[in-house]
Amino acid sequence: MSSLGKEFRITVFGASHGEAVGVVMEGLPVGFAIDMDALSAFLARRAPGRGAFATARRETDAPHFLSGVKNGVTCGGAVTAVIRNSDAHPGDYEALRNTPRPGHADFTARIKDGDAVDLSGGGRFSGRLTAPLCIAGGIAMQLLEEKNIRVVSHIASIAGIADEGLFPASAPGKPFPTLSAARGEDMLAAIAKARADGDSVGGVVECAVLGLPAGLGDALFDGVESRLSAALFGIPAVKGVEFGTGFAAAALRGSENNDAFVLRGGKAVTETNRCGGILGGITTGAPLVFRVAFKPTPSIARRQRTVDLAAMRETTVEIAGRHDPCIVPRAVPCVEAAAAVVLYDILCSERGK
Amino acid sequence: MSSLGKEFRITVFGASHGEAVGVVMEGLPVGFAIDMDALSAFLARRAPGRGAFATARRETDAPHFLSGVKNGVTCGGAVTAVIRNSDAHPGDYEALRNTPRPGHADFTARIKDGDAVDLSGGGRFSGRLTAPLCIAGGIAMQLLEEKNIRVVSHIASIAGIADEGLFPASAPGKPFPTLSAARGEDMLAAIAKARADGDSVGGVVECAVLGLPAGLGDALFDGVESRLSAALFGIPAVKGVEFGTGFAAAALRGSENNDAFVLRGGKAVTETNRCGGILGGITTGAPLVFRVAFKPTPSIARRQRTVDLAAMRETTVEIAGRHDPCIVPRAVPCVEAAAAVVLYDILCSERGK
Amino acid sequence: MSSLGKEFRITVFGASHGEAVGVVMEGLPVGFAIDMDALSAFLARRAPGRGAFATARRETDAPHFLSGVKNGVTCGGAVTAVIRNSDAHPGDYEALRNTPRPGHADFTARIKDGDAVDLSGGGRFSGRLTAPLCIAGGIAMQLLEEKNIRVVSHIASIAGIADEGLFPASAPGKPFPTLSAARGEDMLAAIAKARADGDSVGGVVECAVLGLPAGLGDALFDGVESRLSAALFGIPAVKGVEFGTGFAAAALRGSENNDAFVLRGGKAVTETNRCGGILGGITTGAPLVFRVAFKPTPSIARRQRTVDLAAMRETTVEIAGRHDPCIVPRAVPCVEAAAAVVLYDILCSERGK
Amino acid sequence: MSSLGKEFRITVFGASHGEAVGVVMEGLPVGFAIDMDALSAFLARRAPGRGAFATARRETDAPHFLSGVKNGVTCGGAVTAVIRNSDAHPGDYEALRNTPRPGHADFTARIKDGDAVDLSGGGRFSGRLTAPLCIAGGIAMQLLEEKNIRVVSHIASIAGIADEGLFPASAPGKPFPTLSAARGEDMLAAIAKARADGDSVGGVVECAVLGLPAGLGDALFDGVESRLSAALFGIPAVKGVEFGTGFAAAALRGSENNDAFVLRGGKAVTETNRCGGILGGITTGAPLVFRVAFKPTPSIARRQRTVDLAAMRETTVEIAGRHDPCIVPRAVPCVEAAAAVVLYDILCSERGK
Repeated sequence: MSSLGKEFRITVFGASHGEAVGVVMEGLPVGFAIDMDALSAFLARRAPGRGAFATARRETDAPHFLSGVKNGVTCGGAVTAVIRNSDAHPGDYEALRNTPRPGHADFTARIKDGDAVDLSGGGRFSGRLTAPLCIAGGIAMQLLEEKNIRVVSHIASIAGIADEGLFPASAPGKPFPTLSAARGEDMLAAIAKARADGDSVGGVVECAVLGLPAGLGDALFDGVESRLSAALFGIPAVKGVEFGTGFAAAALRGSENNDAFVLRGGKAVTETNRCGGILGGITTGAPLVFRVAFKPTPSIARRQRTVDLAAMRETTVEIAGRHDPCIVPRAVPCVEAAAAVVLYDILCSERGK
Repeated sequence: MSSLGKEFRITVFGASHGEAVGVVMEGLPVGFAIDMDALSAFLARRAPGRGAFATARRETDAPHFLSGVKNGVTCGGAVTAVIRNSDAHPGDYEALRNTPRPGHADFTARIKDGDAVDLSGGGRFSGRLTAPLCIAGGIAMQLLEEKNIRVVSHIASIAGIADEGLFPASAPGKPFPTLSAARGEDMLAAIAKARADGDSVGGVVECAVLGLPAGLGDALFDGVESRLSAALFGIPAVKGVEFGTGFAAAALRGSENNDAFVLRGGKAVTETNRCGGILGGITTGAPLVFRVAFKPTPSIARRQRTVDLAAMRETTVEIAGRHDPCIVPRAVPCVEAAAAVVLYDILCSERGK
Repeated sequence: MSSLGKEFRITVFGASHGEAVGVVMEGLPVGFAIDMDALSAFLARRAPGRGAFATARRETDAPHFLSGVKNGVTCGGAVTAVIRNSDAHPGDYEALRNTPRPGHADFTARIKDGDAVDLSGGGRFSGRLTAPLCIAGGIAMQLLEEKNIRVVSHIASIAGIADEGLFPASAPGKPFPTLSAARGEDMLAAIAKARADGDSVGGVVECAVLGLPAGLGDALFDGVESRLSAALFGIPAVKGVEFGTGFAAAALRGSENNDAFVLRGGKAVTETNRCGGILGGITTGAPLVFRVAFKPTPSIARRQRTVDLAAMRETTVEIAGRHDPCIVPRAVPCVEAAAAVVLYDILCSERGK
Repeated sequence: MSSLGKEFRITVFGASHGEAVGVVMEGLPVGFAIDMDALSAFLARRAPGRGAFATARRETDAPHFLSGVKNGVTCGGAVTAVIRNSDAHPGDYEALRNTPRPGHADFTARIKDGDAVDLSGGGRFSGRLTAPLCIAGGIAMQLLEEKNIRVVSHIASIAGIADEGLFPASAPGKPFPTLSAARGEDMLAAIAKARADGDSVGGVVECAVLGLPAGLGDALFDGVESRLSAALFGIPAVKGVEFGTGFAAAALRGSENNDAFVLRGGKAVTETNRCGGILGGITTGAPLVFRVAFKPTPSIARRQRTVDLAAMRETTVEIAGRHDPCIVPRAVPCVEAAAAVVLYDILCSERGK
């Protein structure tokens, strides 16, 4: 299953070098005029071929609406959007068929899908599948903005270089969103260095959802963290998700980690936000803050050891294709998209209660 | 909703100081003889009142099967198990009704459930709701063991004190499961110190599932990480989940984080297991390894600042009740239970494919 | 799975002669004061031991709330209600273990559940499982009544004897709800005759939901008919479901079956209601009208041919136990309960749109 | 939501005169070679423009696979198939915008979708949406045939003229599938007469699934009837569904309706099949037999009364477009498709148990 959500449900399909990738969205309101320019701008942040740090693959990534939209306005029923894979080079990958790339899904995809597996460009396991996620997320974001809910994020670290500044107090600039320009330069230098070394680097994206009402989510498995993490771990290369102080909380004392309740403007709020805007799976009304760890891109130029699965002997592989030495900048909108899809879904369920 | 799973579906109900907590399990095989002694032993690891580090509340926590089990054998249909709250003291908490405890769900529970909210002992947000999760997990674990799949774990850290040793190579002892006895002593000392200070400490549980076949899970939102994290974040106090190298991967290079493929005994496997046994959302056949961060128990004896929600003025609160200065030891079986429930569910879906 | 619903989700458990039957309800509003007297009165309509036409088994069928209710008011989280099987006689049925009763689920239950099968009193296939359905339905009905939505029904026919009168214009009396007292007498006579003959009779229940807003439901598989029929066929002994003119429509012409649109009090409505209040899966605002066919009770006193599954030879069976010669009167509240659960669920999904 | 199924899940999208209709199928086995000729032949049975009884609209209805299929073989992940609406005439319907056609979904669609509603050709409520259902059903049928499970059907009646013959013993011919050629002629004459009168007729489709193993399905809401009826009522114009003797059972006695168990070839089976191959929601191993009632096509040429929703005054409407005087012949493969999708889904869930 490649579906997510309950009242706002998305189903993602396609493969990297197939004909198209796309998404079916069920539960969108009828009569909603999608801001196509804003959607394109959002998708452009994820699109390949932008900036020195990104892959050379160039695609317009313009979504085409197959159903549910008429003259840019939702007209009822499932909304289907597809992006054609205009720049697909399936041949690039055939050589890798029997020699799985370390750190990539080639190996497990083969086990899962058997001989029929489509490995071109990562097949259905490719980061390209985040493009339809971003279509859904971009639309969800527009719906959230109507309720004055905003999703913002920054690159918290790349290659161990941490961003500096107050988040989410200051909104970072695009398209390489760091709070500190200087640390951003350091990160870009680390990416360039990794590229020069035929290597790659990972990083952490920090995201906040502002303007959420208190009371969203629920106890146990329907908590905001459960639903959000399920979506975030669906983004390729994500290896960790934490909320508020997260893993650091494990080393703190209760007296250090608890957020005192205080009165602000006649309202009871938490003085600090170590809990990341969630207590007991439910939003507190403070910004919902979480961090997502991305591993370094597994596709590196260096020679790596692998196994020839046809001959069943050890061998090496060198990956030629077009690859980002760091997918973190392009992952930022994906994180935002996942958050927007989940939060909009939760809002739909709570609606009218 | 307090449900989890698809083919093996559990629905948890109850409240801390209500009549009972319980779980309905749909999708268990028929004719399965539950090892009640093993189940009791598993539940005992989570039960309160064990050891110096735990709360003084004492309950037998013996599950009573209301449906679906006859003479200890599943006989078809939903299996319902309940645990009576024999030692409930609802009165203890009434004073806290208007003064939410910092770091606790009292505040959001009130927003969610309004005036009808049941806050006694944390109500339905209490850690006590992990008891029915452990019933389901304990049974799932028995079903996994029939397939030679084992769930093991240790306390990776408490109060910033890290365990030492090779995991999952060596299985830690119980009931305070550390690899290193010395570091375990250090952790216990830190807990005792926190208790003496009227404070609490957090920690990290590391868990591994051994013996899983390669090929479980799927791309995108049906990946093993997505399904597992959704369950783990359902455990109260969890603030972070990571797989394999996790957040540390974000500071590594691809060449450091990738797992080379090698031949071992005629089989292609990963030489290392930095990916935590999952690539592309699918198991590699290596141990599935993940870590779960628990915040320090929010209920501390110290005076804390809060707001009197009736009078709408700032005040302080001192928590009297019975509370663990560290819930990590008792959280270990909960993590295992969540893992067992999810993996058994995934196995059910894959069955016969 | 024995679950139903999306935003209002019920999970039914238990067996006829086990310890209890029960239901977990997720998605009920918090702070709702259940009218326990009204609920008891509703359950009494389904309970055995009422009237000449019913089985001799007597049970109070008083629901006991294990979770989610405090002092009769929902307090958040899943609501669990159980009914103890105080009058269970498991021994009555052991003799039938190897000789499946014709028309009953004994045969398929054995195939499904194997040697562990619990056949006492029909086990989990028993009509007794409609008691928890009625608990959920009775509560849903109270929630619907707050919105001026009412569920009414009558016995449309028993043993081929059709009721007479205008439905839903006139609300029939209880506990044997026919529009025509004379036809009701005829039906009771037919039931008495069947009982005297050691036989049983079937019938049809017609149900209407009044006061529904127009616009509920949706196209395709989320239509009101789809969701309602899935619930109705979950009631044991149901063999057919039809909406509006139903099967009779198949013999009509379009000009005879179409409902003209007219203005009434300034509103566009259908002049007639042959469509049963649904067009395109969506409510029209007219009463939602449907009929449910119940087969004659399979448990009859007469000697019937069956197979001894242990000896694998043909034999006969005579059913001793306590059985209704006609379950239709007791099925009426079950039909209403299924309708109430489904419509309340749909209303929850539409809420606030 | 326009989704159906659990392990084999289909999501239908599109509108009658939009760009395309389509379906996303999750859970298909990987490496399955779709017999495209067989699929086309199956779709041709539903396609418009065949025979005297059908609409004049002509479309090739050739499915185009956007994802999940490579060289005709499933390669993992969601399979997406679309059919372009090459012969769409959106203009035909604009005049009807404010004057809902009696018996059609125009009225409720407007309430549901508001001013943005797409009514062209019935929009998303059109029978055209059964084309993607038939794609999914046609593929499911091929998967069932691999297990020697066959779905067969015949026209049980049209305009009150009943087919004659033993079903499912004799498989009817295509494309107007009646058992009796003579009664088929009578039905065709009735259709021709209705067309000449500017009117339409309804009918009943009887369907059987042969070769199913005993033991599929389950008690309560997961019974085969529940799951099947939910799919069948998703087909436009369906007003009734019954299994086995169905509504007729309501007039029978238990002794007449029960199926005796007998030994045949050393196996215990039901001597007759009045239950339609299901007892307690579970298959008996006998053919699964059910009937589906279709109302007469609401789109008739005759002048009908309606309301002008813009001017809010009563008026009349005459429907020009292209319409079948009887959709029953084209509905036959839709019924088979719904059955195949549901049964294949159930088989997936049972697989390996």
